[in-house]
Amino acid sequence: MRNFDQFTITQAVLERVANTPDARTRQISEALVRHLHDFIREVRPTQAEWEQGIAFLTATGHMCTGTRQEFILLSDTLGVSMLVDAINHDHQQAVTESTVLGPFYVEGPPEQPCGSDISGDLPGEPMFASGTVRTADGTPLANAIVDVWHSDEDGYYDVQHEGEGLVARARFRTDEAGHFHFWSIKPAAYPIPHDGPVGKMLQAQGRHPWRPAHVHFMIEAPGYEKLVTHVFVAGDAYLDSDAVFGVKDSLICDFAVHPAGAAPDGRVVDRPWCELTYDFRLNPVSNAASRAA
Amino acid sequence: MRNFDQFTITQAVLERVANTPDARTRQISEALVRHLHDFIREVRPTQAEWEQGIAFLTATGHMCTGTRQEFILLSDTLGVSMLVDAINHDHQQAVTESTVLGPFYVEGPPEQPCGSDISGDLPGEPMFASGTVRTADGTPLANAIVDVWHSDEDGYYDVQHEGEGLVARARFRTDEAGHFHFWSIKPAAYPIPHDGPVGKMLQAQGRHPWRPAHVHFMIEAPGYEKLVTHVFVAGDAYLDSDAVFGVKDSLICDFAVHPAGAAPDGRVVDRPWCELTYDFRLNPVSNAASRAA
Ligand SMILES: [Fe+2]
Ligand SMILES: [Fe+2]
Repeated sequence: MRNFDQFTITQAVLERVANTPDARTRQISEALVRHLHDFIREVRPTQAEWEQGIAFLTATGHMCTGTRQEFILLSDTLGVSMLVDAINHDHQQAVTESTVLGPFYVEGPPEQPCGSDISGDLPGEPMFASGTVRTADGTPLANAIVDVWHSDEDGYYDVQHEGEGLVARARFRTDEAGHFHFWSIKPAAYPIPHDGPVGKMLQAQGRHPWRPAHVHFMIEAPGYEKLVTHVFVAGDAYLDSDAVFGVKDSLICDFAVHPAGAAPDGRVVDRPWCELTYDFRLNPVSNAASRAA
Repeated sequence: MRNFDQFTITQAVLERVANTPDARTRQISEALVRHLHDFIREVRPTQAEWEQGIAFLTATGHMCTGTRQEFILLSDTLGVSMLVDAINHDHQQAVTESTVLGPFYVEGPPEQPCGSDISGDLPGEPMFASGTVRTADGTPLANAIVDVWHSDEDGYYDVQHEGEGLVARARFRTDEAGHFHFWSIKPAAYPIPHDGPVGKMLQAQGRHPWRPAHVHFMIEAPGYEKLVTHVFVAGDAYLDSDAVFGVKDSLICDFAVHPAGAAPDGRVVDRPWCELTYDFRLNPVSNAASRAA
């Protein structure tokens, strides 16, 4: 356990972690050491580059607060989040596709009655959002928890405005027909927060930080896998270059525009309004369990 | 650029970073994506494990302060620091071997005249340290800058004690014969700081956090590669299980104990004292440059 060169050091570290009591922790530790060392041997960082790497990780950590998760942005922009998503949602049947959680979810948003307008005082094009939560065979699921959150018309989330409180963010519950609906405003495309280390990385890589407009959904019902997904706005300029690789065709909705007048829930709107409608189908837990086995 | 699965996502991210203007940044970005995705595909993290990974990195970043560098500790304990060191110091000739910088270096320590006692009021066994800085062929190097830092007899560095100021840490300059000497106390083996995420990792991996006793040296002279190394205390119980894999046989010194009485510099010591002596040989910059090419 001395005098290592650039090849024997890897074996030495692997021997050191070989006694990790928990088998899964051991597996992850060993794989991490092998892949990390392979990366280092391939790029052969100078001491100064290693220092830059340490400084980048440190700055990324220092950027993280209760409302800013720079390491999630890093995972998202390196395609890791969507890779993890793909590994965990390799569905064999007709259930709704998932996508990234993103850094803006807030745990336990306030539950509101269906039909509520969650836009607060935000300006923007009125959006009537409705959907049904179903099993894979189409049976409606009552009492499913539907969390929604989305950006304002300038592309910002409530948590990005200091002291604003929760806006364009709520929790609904499906009725006996598996249905929910609410009012808000149409979200806009937005750049992911890029005033930190991840923004510097994107700039160095010649990449833009934009995401196509979308509404986030997180849906939970007992016996079904939690669904984390978006509904994207058709025609968005960034659908083919999402900074976090999250777009799936099956998640695009046309957000049809309707003239001023009565909406499906009876509300009379004095301006044109757009409509998000989506039928979500959840994956039974038994499928998820058998996939993991 | 849509609908990626766990294999096509990697190609998509590689295409996105392919236009990185700077060639070296492009090379590092591409290698990072490939190795990181390979790691993820091998271990197949669940969504919850991915969240644990994000939380681990975030906590590691939050632990970093001006005097605590948790990401360096992570690099050290995963063998990455010694791997980078090995890649950059694959010496073909008889120059002093290098080892990890560690997290306790302080930039620009105060320069002191040779012969100074840098131990402040610390208790411990007196240590007379002396050495010569030479070229590979043995020619003494005058005016080389010799930074030294080491732990106290309890294994703590000055920066780990709040408000203590700089102790057991100084900068010396070699004389015309390439020589320097100073007094301090003998350092002790110590556990790397393990009250943070890296300590939790070591515990989960069933590893101890100890390093064998050593004195850090960083030596600079114009025309020579900066030498970052330690001199280890012979016989230490942790020489074969250094938590950061830094031990090399050529860096071990026996710290011979002498009876009370006159030391080589004329100082009369009223207790037994130990002696660190080491001849450092620096690598010419031309070697370093040709190695990188
Ligand atoms: Fe979003
Ligand atoms: Fe040390």
